[in-house]
Amino acid sequence: MPQGVPESIPNDGLTTRQRRNTPVLGVHTGDGKGKSTAAFGMAMRAWNAGLNVAVFQFVKSAKWRVGEESALEALGALHEQTGRGGPVQWHKMGQGWSWLRSSSEHADDHAAAARAGWAEISRRLAGEEHDFYVLDEFTYPLDWGWIDVDEVVDTLRARPGRQHVIITGRRAPQKLIDAADLVTEMRKVAHPMDQGRKGQKGIEW
Amino acid sequence: MPQGVPESIPNDGLTTRQRRNTPVLGVHTGDGKGKSTAAFGMAMRAWNAGLNVAVFQFVKSAKWRVGEESALEALGALHEQTGRGGPVQWHKMGQGWSWLRSSSEHADDHAAAARAGWAEISRRLAGEEHDFYVLDEFTYPLDWGWIDVDEVVDTLRARPGRQHVIITGRRAPQKLIDAADLVTEMRKVAHPMDQGRKGQKGIEW
Repeated sequence: MPQGVPESIPNDGLTTRQRRNTPVLGVHTGDGKGKSTAAFGMAMRAWNAGLNVAVFQFVKSAKWRVGEESALEALGALHEQTGRGGPVQWHKMGQGWSWLRSSSEHADDHAAAARAGWAEISRRLAGEEHDFYVLDEFTYPLDWGWIDVDEVVDTLRARPGRQHVIITGRRAPQKLIDAADLVTEMRKVAHPMDQGRKGQKGIEW
Repeated sequence: MPQGVPESIPNDGLTTRQRRNTPVLGVHTGDGKGKSTAAFGMAMRAWNAGLNVAVFQFVKSAKWRVGEESALEALGALHEQTGRGGPVQWHKMGQGWSWLRSSSEHADDHAAAARAGWAEISRRLAGEEHDFYVLDEFTYPLDWGWIDVDEVVDTLRARPGRQHVIITGRRAPQKLIDAADLVTEMRKVAHPMDQGRKGQKGIEW
C-alpha cells in the first residue's frame, strides 16, 4: 500500500498541502466485481475520518438492499449516538427518490427519475452539503443518454470546496474518465456465476 | 448488479442449494486501487449477514491503521453490544501477530512472521473458526517464496465447511488464481499519485 509517496512532483505551482487537500473524483468501471463494493469500502473509510457521507444508488428497485447499506446505516446511527465517525445518508432511485413528495413520481419513467437524482446531487454539490459522495451505477443513465455527460463533467469540475465524488458502473464515458483523478477498471478474471452458481447472502449482497 | 442469475447451469450433479452454499475463494489482484478496499467492503457485507469475520493483514507495520479497521471494529463492537451482525477480528502481522506471546517474536524476520500467520490461519480453517476470512496483501509472501504456494492452495481447496476466503495483493500466483472461484484484476487507469498528490485521510486510509 503506497503510504502517500507520489511518483513525481508536478510543476503545478501548488504546495503539498494544497495538493493534499484537492478533492478526488474517482471512477470504478469495467466488467468485473468490486466496483460498488470498493466504493462502499471507501465510504466506510470516509465515515471513520468523520466525513459527511451520502450514497446515491441509481438502481431500478428500491427493494434491492445490499449489506453495505445496512452496515453503513449502522455506522451512521453510531455517529448520531456517540459522535464517532461522520453522518451517513443512503438514497435509492428505485421507483422514485426518498426525498420526493410522492413515491409515484417518476414511477414509470426511469429516465426522469435518474435526471431528478442528478439534479438533486448537483444542487447538493453547489451547497457543499456532503464531503464524500458515492454515485453508484451512475454510468448507466450517462451511457443511455438520459443525463448529459458534458453537463455532469462541467458540474463535477466546477464543484466548490472539498467534496470527494466516487462514480461506479460499466462503460464509463470517456469524458468522465478524462475528468477523473482516480480511475480503476475492475476486470473479470473468473467468477462463480460462470460456473452456474447463484449469488449468496453475505457474499453477493 | 446481477441478482443471482447464473450465465449457465453446470452439469456438476449439484443442486442449486448446494451450489448456493459453496464457499467462495476470491482473489483481488492487479496494480490498481481497490483490492483491499473491496475486500473490506465484502467484510462489511459479511458482517451484516451475521457471518464471523476475521481479517489478517500481511503488512510490515502494525502502526499502519486503515479507516476500515476502525470501522469494522466499531461494527464488531456493535455486535457484542446488540447482537446485530457478526463478530469481527482484525489481526496485523506488523512486528509480530497479536496472538503471539511476545511482540518481539519474529521482530526481525518478516518471512518467519508471515509463515506464523499462515500457520495460524491454516489452523483456524481446519477448526472452522470463522465464516469469512480476508487475507490482505497475502500474495506478497507467496510471491517472495516465503510461504509455499502449493501448500496454501491444497489447504484452501481442502478447507472444511463453508468458509469464504478473500485474498488480496499484486502478482497473485497462477496456481492460486486457478484455484479461485472469483478473481478480479484491479487495473489502474489513472491515479492522483501520478500527478504528485500525496494521500489524504478519508481517501487513502
